[in-house]
Parts: sequence; structure tokens; C-alpha cells
Amino acid sequence: MKKRVVIIGGGIGGIATAYNLRKLTKDVQITLISNRPYFGFTPAYPHLAMGWRRFEEITVPLAPLMSRFGIEFVSEGAEKIDPDNSKVFTRSGKEIGYDYLVIATGPKLVFGAEGMEENSVSICTAEHASDARERFERFCKDPGPVVVGAIPGVSCFGPAYEYALMIHHELRRRGLRRKVPITYVTSEPYLGHLGLGGIGRSRRIMEDLFAEKDIGFITNVKIKAVERDRVVYEDLEGKTYEIPSKFTMIMPRFAGPDVVLSAGDKVASPVNGMVLVNRCFQNPTYGNIYGVGVVVFIPPVEKTPVPTGTPKTGQMIEGMAKAVALNIVADINNSPERYTPTLAAMCIADMGDEGLGFLAYPVIPPREWVGSKKGRWVHWAKTAFEKYFLWKVRRGNVSPWLEEVFLEKVLKVKMVEPCDRC
Amino acid sequence: MKKRVVIIGGGIGGIATAYNLRKLTKDVQITLISNRPYFGFTPAYPHLAMGWRRFEEITVPLAPLMSRFGIEFVSEGAEKIDPDNSKVFTRSGKEIGYDYLVIATGPKLVFGAEGMEENSVSICTAEHASDARERFERFCKDPGPVVVGAIPGVSCFGPAYEYALMIHHELRRRGLRRKVPITYVTSEPYLGHLGLGGIGRSRRIMEDLFAEKDIGFITNVKIKAVERDRVVYEDLEGKTYEIPSKFTMIMPRFAGPDVVLSAGDKVASPVNGMVLVNRCFQNPTYGNIYGVGVVVFIPPVEKTPVPTGTPKTGQMIEGMAKAVALNIVADINNSPERYTPTLAAMCIADMGDEGLGFLAYPVIPPREWVGSKKGRWVHWAKTAFEKYFLWKVRRGNVSPWLEEVFLEKVLKVKMVEPCDRC
Amino acid sequence: MKKRVVIIGGGIGGIATAYNLRKLTKDVQITLISNRPYFGFTPAYPHLAMGWRRFEEITVPLAPLMSRFGIEFVSEGAEKIDPDNSKVFTRSGKEIGYDYLVIATGPKLVFGAEGMEENSVSICTAEHASDARERFERFCKDPGPVVVGAIPGVSCFGPAYEYALMIHHELRRRGLRRKVPITYVTSEPYLGHLGLGGIGRSRRIMEDLFAEKDIGFITNVKIKAVERDRVVYEDLEGKTYEIPSKFTMIMPRFAGPDVVLSAGDKVASPVNGMVLVNRCFQNPTYGNIYGVGVVVFIPPVEKTPVPTGTPKTGQMIEGMAKAVALNIVADINNSPERYTPTLAAMCIADMGDEGLGFLAYPVIPPREWVGSKKGRWVHWAKTAFEKYFLWKVRRGNVSPWLEEVFLEKVLKVKMVEPCDRC
Repeated sequence: MKKRVVIIGGGIGGIATAYNLRKLTKDVQITLISNRPYFGFTPAYPHLAMGWRRFEEITVPLAPLMSRFGIEFVSEGAEKIDPDNSKVFTRSGKEIGYDYLVIATGPKLVFGAEGMEENSVSICTAEHASDARERFERFCKDPGPVVVGAIPGVSCFGPAYEYALMIHHELRRRGLRRKVPITYVTSEPYLGHLGLGGIGRSRRIMEDLFAEKDIGFITNVKIKAVERDRVVYEDLEGKTYEIPSKFTMIMPRFAGPDVVLSAGDKVASPVNGMVLVNRCFQNPTYGNIYGVGVVVFIPPVEKTPVPTGTPKTGQMIEGMAKAVALNIVADINNSPERYTPTLAAMCIADMGDEGLGFLAYPVIPPREWVGSKKGRWVHWAKTAFEKYFLWKVRRGNVSPWLEEVFLEKVLKVKMVEPCDRC
Repeated sequence: MKKRVVIIGGGIGGIATAYNLRKLTKDVQITLISNRPYFGFTPAYPHLAMGWRRFEEITVPLAPLMSRFGIEFVSEGAEKIDPDNSKVFTRSGKEIGYDYLVIATGPKLVFGAEGMEENSVSICTAEHASDARERFERFCKDPGPVVVGAIPGVSCFGPAYEYALMIHHELRRRGLRRKVPITYVTSEPYLGHLGLGGIGRSRRIMEDLFAEKDIGFITNVKIKAVERDRVVYEDLEGKTYEIPSKFTMIMPRFAGPDVVLSAGDKVASPVNGMVLVNRCFQNPTYGNIYGVGVVVFIPPVEKTPVPTGTPKTGQMIEGMAKAVALNIVADINNSPERYTPTLAAMCIADMGDEGLGFLAYPVIPPREWVGSKKGRWVHWAKTAFEKYFLWKVRRGNVSPWLEEVFLEKVLKVKMVEPCDRC
Repeated sequence: MKKRVVIIGGGIGGIATAYNLRKLTKDVQITLISNRPYFGFTPAYPHLAMGWRRFEEITVPLAPLMSRFGIEFVSEGAEKIDPDNSKVFTRSGKEIGYDYLVIATGPKLVFGAEGMEENSVSICTAEHASDARERFERFCKDPGPVVVGAIPGVSCFGPAYEYALMIHHELRRRGLRRKVPITYVTSEPYLGHLGLGGIGRSRRIMEDLFAEKDIGFITNVKIKAVERDRVVYEDLEGKTYEIPSKFTMIMPRFAGPDVVLSAGDKVASPVNGMVLVNRCFQNPTYGNIYGVGVVVFIPPVEKTPVPTGTPKTGQMIEGMAKAVALNIVADINNSPERYTPTLAAMCIADMGDEGLGFLAYPVIPPREWVGSKKGRWVHWAKTAFEKYFLWKVRRGNVSPWLEEVFLEKVLKVKMVEPCDRC
């Protein structure tokens, strides 16, 4: 009988795991559970919020896609995991048994500052981004100060930088820029820290970029409240400040969603409810549970004065998905081979006209190498990659992703490597 | 009967206002009062101080010029303004009535540190610059340390940077550089602040430039005294330091001259005696009084630990002159149109062999854009502009200034725009 | 009778003085005393430690070389100088009289932190570098954290930077870099200080370079102890920290060797036992004693929070050697001419694939000019210079050194200039 692999989550992590499994073997039954009926290309949500993309351009309905590639699709939220009996329960009460479970739900968003949910827009989901777009249009009719930033504990700073730079670009395009002071307010100890202790010269590069674009910044602070017309923050000594803001986007921090917590503290980290995994992204207690994507627990790269977390970029997630698919297939085949993602990554911020990219191998230091590129072609490269990625998702294409080819051929870096410790 | 416009001041502000008025209408009688018999191209005074220009090269006698273009010229200082009766009194007691008054006197120089007037050279007037040149020649015969800097409250830092860089260049030319430590001592909180909170990457650019040219710097301090052989300054905690100096140039701060104060506190700001104006550079109390140039009151861009002021560059002044001329003519014609200068500016520091230019639109943040350029061609561009500007002054040419064309055609920025608030 | 010049030391300073004297006159008897039987090209010792050069490639046996060029060679250590009777005594008790004495011994190495001699490798001598190579090979079999740094009082930081960058390069070559955090721990107040208050933009350049290569740094601290698995250091407040290290290279500080101390405190500086000299590198008390190279006393360029000294680069040493040879010959000829080295220098750090060079004239500020270059060609230029230098040492070539030609023809800088003060 075919082994059954259940994947919770239909984002980059879930889809990439499913496609990788399909590519590796026909001899497995794959079930994908998702509380959203579509796959969304997360890196383009800031573009959606800017009105530079339409919802339909960056999403793909999951049901027809899954059926075309022989993947069972359960279109509702997973509510409970019973790891001892290898079962998942959905919200409607459906019980789904598994031989292998891949948790790729993405995070629960924690809007940890007072008034943040009402007064700050968000670009973390397609729905949020669509709402942000409407609010931005209203803002442009009577502009004022803009604040973009991140509360304590945030691990995902890249989109905040990208969004601040996009707002700058869009306001210039509309001839409104000189009416709008833009300020970036962050828990990072310095600009360009990114939850990673910086990547190469990222501090200097971001400081120069913000200076050239007249974007102010306040670092090493805790945002306490987001009000309709201001953002309130606190410095390390506990002194309170406020900065006027008519349009605000503050990144929430990420935690494990309730369905992970339901699996108990052998699966959910007591720190933030994210999935505990070893180097092969396998749960140490339940060997048939794997984690992929933002929902995986990775400790902070370094202790910062205001807490920050380690980001997981799209490319890191694809590496995890590939390693997990290989590990599941090896386990099925009783092979001792195990794989770990190298966590090399290209992270590209699109600024509207030009792009800024950082390359790191691995993302978590010490690093074999790092690099950065800036220019118009980086903007076009990111756009091209988005189109290509969505084309492959639609086709269920299982040939290596473009960036994997780039990494292996040009940079001589593999996305996964054999692991001898798990 | 023709309306009478009286302009006090024969510098860039006064001349540009007069020429703009002439260009707009023949139907106005223009009187220009100046306590100096010549127009001087202020941006070239550092060159005069260096011996790179002669007095005659960068000045134009006013009397023949004004008569040629049908502008009445009063070659003596204005002593008193009676705004209630719309009259100006000159030092010799002459009474001049006006329909419109444009105050473009330039500043009173305040040498606010002890011994500064005797022991520091100045490059703020052509006479000072000529004296500085002689003292520099004597210094070169027996060189020693040089200090260039700015006392608290200074708003005009650009020429101090330019002069320090010019001294470096001239000393290298003479093979004396390695005998002369050069230090820049300033009230700015950091290098490249310029009274403007920086322009783009100006901090990094100036730090790099000074490092490459081995010019030391001390920021965020108050110069208290200039002695024959040293400069005494104080830090924020009130601790006193001294630095040896055999040749010293410390920028004075600017205030409104006595003739502005004579107009009373509805015209002269209680802060520094400068002319109070609205966005259209019109006095809020006396609607027939306008201010143009350095004598206009503009509040500081930001509060700095040691006080600094907002600079007014030549180009900002030309924008003011154009807006004021348009507003006067509109008022005469009973038109409701009013104009405000956008205060876009190119500021170029000539370093002898190469130049460093900053572009900002507007100069006062938030800014639509900023930029910077460095190179030999910038040096030549500044030189060419000087020659062109003086040629136009001599010809009374009323076609748009070269940089206005550049701003409008290349950078798509107008120097003035309609104002709907005044 | 021919005057007898005795030179103690067979390194760059001693050899360059001997060759310069040979070039200037046949009418002098030269004796060279060296406790090492070979000349070693010190700048290549880091390469030796890396395994990129063999011992034989960068050393030349002295005995055959000296005999070929008519220089008497005493192959043993000098033990005592009797300046009042113009005599040197060797370890074996040999007594050598002189008319002129040139002290070019190089420094005594002071391993001033606890456990440093055992637990830190050194690249200061060819023997140390060979040992470092073996230890590095062992380290690569089981890699871990690396610390490179400098204790308080160090004057020679360049090779520490170079070695850290070389280790980075070699580990990348071996695919081990991402297993090795590299940290540079130094007494310099900031990165790129180099004991010189920086050279041009050296701070920014080094910070960028270390960021790009993911090398951490800790500045302004005192290394107190080097243990097998860690380095212990203290901050300015006396607080103690430790950093894990499996492979450690900490630069020792330099002092005058015992043979200089034996000459008494008119010759040996009470500060560090180095040779006291005037601008012409002549001892002020004993006019027939000169100092050349690292053994000469030069006060620190500036007081730093943790003490640092002024480096003496190979090129500065060649300038000293040339000036001293000219001064001795002038003295013999009863000519009043005296020469002083200008101390212009190119300092190049080889990073394995590319090089980073700083140019300063003079090295000690204020400086006429500074510059920096980075690139592959700098790596090749340094390599070419090494080969050329060793070829000239082997041939006893007395034509001007390649860099002297470069300095004079391209940069218009002479290595020595007339001195009118000695």
C-alpha cells in the first residue's frame, strides 16, 4: 500500500514539498490541507499593496491545480494534530491519518502593539495587502507622514524595507513625495540588521539608500502603540516617544498557529509555538513529522537589545521543502540517506524602478560568502522570477527552480547537502 | 502712474529681483539701494581668498549697469524703513517712498567668538576675502596648523567646507601640505550636516573626502575664542579644549542688519532680526514688503545640540527673487495669482581640481529627491556657471538662468510654483 | 685607510643599507653581523604560514651573498655595543671595532599576554610562520572558531589584517569557511586605524571588507590571555570577556633587543629600548651610530585609549637605509649634506586572490596625499614585487628599487630629501 504524506499548508513550503515529492516518486499518496483556496506568491504581496499587481496575477486556485497533479486537496483549515496516533483533524471534524506529516502552515501573525491591528496596514496576507492598497489610495488624496516599521520579536524585516522603498517610489511617481516624511522605526539594533546581524555590507548599503531617498530611521526601539495619527515607541531605557503618522505599516511578529500548539510541546516550541526540528527538519520526538517554512523554529542568530528573530526567506523554504521530500522518500525506502538544506539564499528587495539583492551562503553565519547587487536589472530579475515561479506552480513543473540552477551552476552552491548527524 | 518698487541690496537677491521685474513688465519704476558700489558674485569669494580670482573678475560696478537697464541706483546704505508710511531713509537722509519694498540686504555678520574678528579671516565679503588672500600668502612663508570652522548659530557651512578643501589643494600645489595639519571645527552635529540634517549621503561623502585628503574634524562643539595661535572650543558638557592654529577661518553667524530692525518687530524676527515672510516671501503684516535672500527668516530645519541655522544658497535666492517679482506684478495687476519658490537647489563645492555637487528638491525636507556628483567636470561646470552668470549680470539678460533651464528641462523641476495658501 | 661600517642585522634594513653603501662608494669596509644565516623577505611570512610559499622561495643564504659583494659577514648574534669605544662584541666574544655603526637588528618580540607564546601562532619570523603552517593544517582537519588580533602596544597591524583575510581565503578554497567564525580582536580604537590614525578611508574600507567577508571585529580592547580554546580580553572599564578560539594568531609588540639596551640609555630609548635617532636617523649622542628599520624609536602618531605604536613598513625602512647610507658617506667625505627619508610608503595586503593597497606620503601625518587601491592586479603586483625584490637581493643589485622608481616617476615623490636641521 502506498504511504500517505499529509501536508498542512498551501504556500511556498507546502506546494514545493508536494511538487518535490511528486518529482521523486509516484509511489506515495499526497494530501494537501489548506485553509486558503489559493496559492499566493507571498513575495509579491507588497506589490499588491502598492497596486502594482492584481490579486489574480499573483495567486493560483489550488483545487484544479492539485487535482491535475494527483494531489488530494482538502480545502479547509486543519484544527488539531494527534501525533501519537498520526492523525490530523480538520475544522469540519474530518479525520485524516498520515504516515508522514509535513507542517507548512506559515505563521500566526501577532500584532503585538496596542491598536496595531486597526491602525496599521499589513502586507502579510493577500487580503491584508488588498486592504492596504485601498487605504494607501485614500491616504494619497490627503497625504502626511508615513511610518513603516517592526515591533519587537519580528523576524521578517525584508518586506518592511521593501515597502518603505516602494512607498517612496510610488509617491515620487505621483509627485507627492515632498509632502510626505517617511520614517522607518524598528526593533533592529541598526539599519540593515535584518534579524541576521547584517548580511555583508547591508548596514552601510541600507543607510546610504535611505539617505539618498530621504527616508529617516529610528533603530533599537520597541513600538508600543499604533494610533490613528501617530506611532508610540519606547527606547531601551523605557523612555516613551511618539512620531506622527497618517499611514502606517508595522510588521507583526510570527508565532506557531494553534494547530501546531495542539500537537503538544514535543512538537510546538515553548518559546513561540513553532515546529521543533533537527538539521533535517524532522521533529526529534515524532520522526514522521517534518516542518517546512516560516512555521519552523529557528533560534535567533544573535541576542539583540530589543528581541529580533531569524528570517526565513522563500529560497530557504524551498531548500527545506527539497530536503524534507528527500528525507521522506529515503525513509520510505529504508535508506539511511538524509539531507539538510544549506540555506543559501538570494533576497531581493524591489524598489519599483531598481532592485537591491543580497546573496548569502548560508544565511545563518558564519558564511562561506556574501554579496550584494543593486540596479535596474535586479528589479527586472525579480519580476521575471515571479512570473517564472507562478508559471511553474501552474504547470506543476518539477524541474529544478530557476534559482536552484543559478545557485548550482553559477555560484557552485547546492540547496541541500547530505547530513550525517540526523 | 507707474508703481515704484524699491529694492534694498545689490547682491544676487537684489539684482535677480530687479531683472525679473524688468523682464515681467516695463510698467514699473525700479529703485535699487546698495551700500556697495558693485555687484559681487558671492560664490567666488573663496576663490578670491585663494588668489584664484581677481576682484575685477568677479565683481561688476552697479552704477553703469543700473543706468543701462533703466533702474534707478542709490549708491549708499539704507538706514531706516518706515513701513507704516512706506518710506526708506538713506544714511545721507534721503527719503525714498515706495509702493513695494524688497529687502535683499544680505546679512549682518556676527563674529560671535572672542577675538574672532581680529584673528580669523573671513570669506563673506569681497573685502574680507582680499584680506584673507594676503594673510594666506604670509602664512605660506612659514606654515603651521590651519583651522577652518563655524561658530554656533551658523547657517552657511558650504563655503567653510569649500575653503578647507581649497586650502588643501593650494598647499599641495605649493608642496606645503605635509607641513600643515588642517582641522575643521564645527557646530554641526556631524560632518556633512550643513544645517540641513544632511543632504542624501552627504555625511558619508564628506567623511570620506576629508579622510582621503587627511583633513581632521571636530563636530558638535562651540568655538568660544580665536587667538593668534589657537582656537578655543567647548563641548556639550562645557569642557574647554584648544587646538593650535596659525591660519584660521571661522564662519560668522548671520543676523538681520540694523535697517531691518528699524522696521520694527512686525518686519524683523525677534529671533535674529531677519525679515518675517510667508510662503510667498511677503511680510504677513505689511503686504507691500517682501524679503529675498539670506536676510529672510527661515527657521532651523531641525534642532541640533549646538544651534545651527538653515542655509540659503544662491539658487534658493534666485527662486525667491523670481517668486517675489511675480507676486509684485500680480499684485499690481490685481491678479490673485501668487507664487512660491520650490527651493530646489544645486550646491557645488569647488575643490580646485575637482568639484562636489549636491542636488536637493526641495532643500528643506521632506525631499522629492536628492543627488550628488563629484568629479573634474563639476569643477569646470561651476567655473562655467560663474562666467555665464557674470556675463548675464553685465548684459542685464532676462532670459532664464542656465540652472533654471537645467532644472526644468533635465530634472523636471520648476523654480517657482503657484501658491494657494497666501 | 678605509673607514669601517658595521651593520647589525641581515634583514631588509641591514641589507638595504649595505647595498646602498656599496653603490655609493668602494672606499668603505662593510661588516654585516647577523644571528640568522639567511635574509628573509618578511612581507611573505604570512604566505609561508599559509603554505602559499616555501621557506627556500622567500629566503636567501647570507654567507655566499655577502662574500660575492665584498661584504664581511659575521654569522652570529651581536651581544654588546660599547658606544664610547666604538666596539661591538659578538656572542662568541669576538670584538669588532667600527667607525660607523648601523643598528638594524629588527625588534625583540614581546608576547605580552598570558599563554600567548604557547597558544598563539606567530608570523613574525620564518620559523614561527613554518610552525603556524603546521598548526593550521591540523586545525583544518577539525575546524572551529579563529581569532586574529593584536595585544596593547602593537605597532605592526598590517600583517594581522592580511593574515585574517588570508585565512578567510584559504578556508573558502577548502570549502570550510562556513564552519569557522573569524574574529579580529585589537587594541586599535577602530578597524583600519593601523597605529596611524587611519590612512585615508582605511576605516571604512576595512569595515566594508570585513563585512563582505563575514569577519567579525572587536576594537579598543586589551587581550589579557590566550588559552588553548579561547582568547580573554578586557575593555576600557576593565571588564573581562572571552571569545572561543581553536586557532589563534595574536601580534606581539616590539621592543629593542638586548644588544641595543647594552649600549646604554643614550642609545636605547627608556620607553621600549629602541634606538634613539634624529631626523637623519643618527643617534643624537653618538654621531657615528645610526638606526635603521623596526628597531628605531618613533613615538606613537597619536595617543589611543589602548596604547598602539607607529608601524614601520618595508618601504619606510628602505628610505631609512638610503638616507643613512648617504649620511655616512657624506660624513666620511666631510660633506655637510645630510638626508632624511620622506617616509612615503605603499603598504599592500595580499588577500589570496586580490590585494588591498594603501599609499601615503608621508606615512606619518599630516600627509601630502593618501590613496588606496583594491583588486586582483594589486595581488599580482605584490607577488611580482616579492620576486623582483628577492632577485635583486640575490644579485646584489644596486640600481634603484622598483618602488623607488615608481614613487619618483609616477607619484613624483622622492624617498629621501635633504635635511637642514641635523
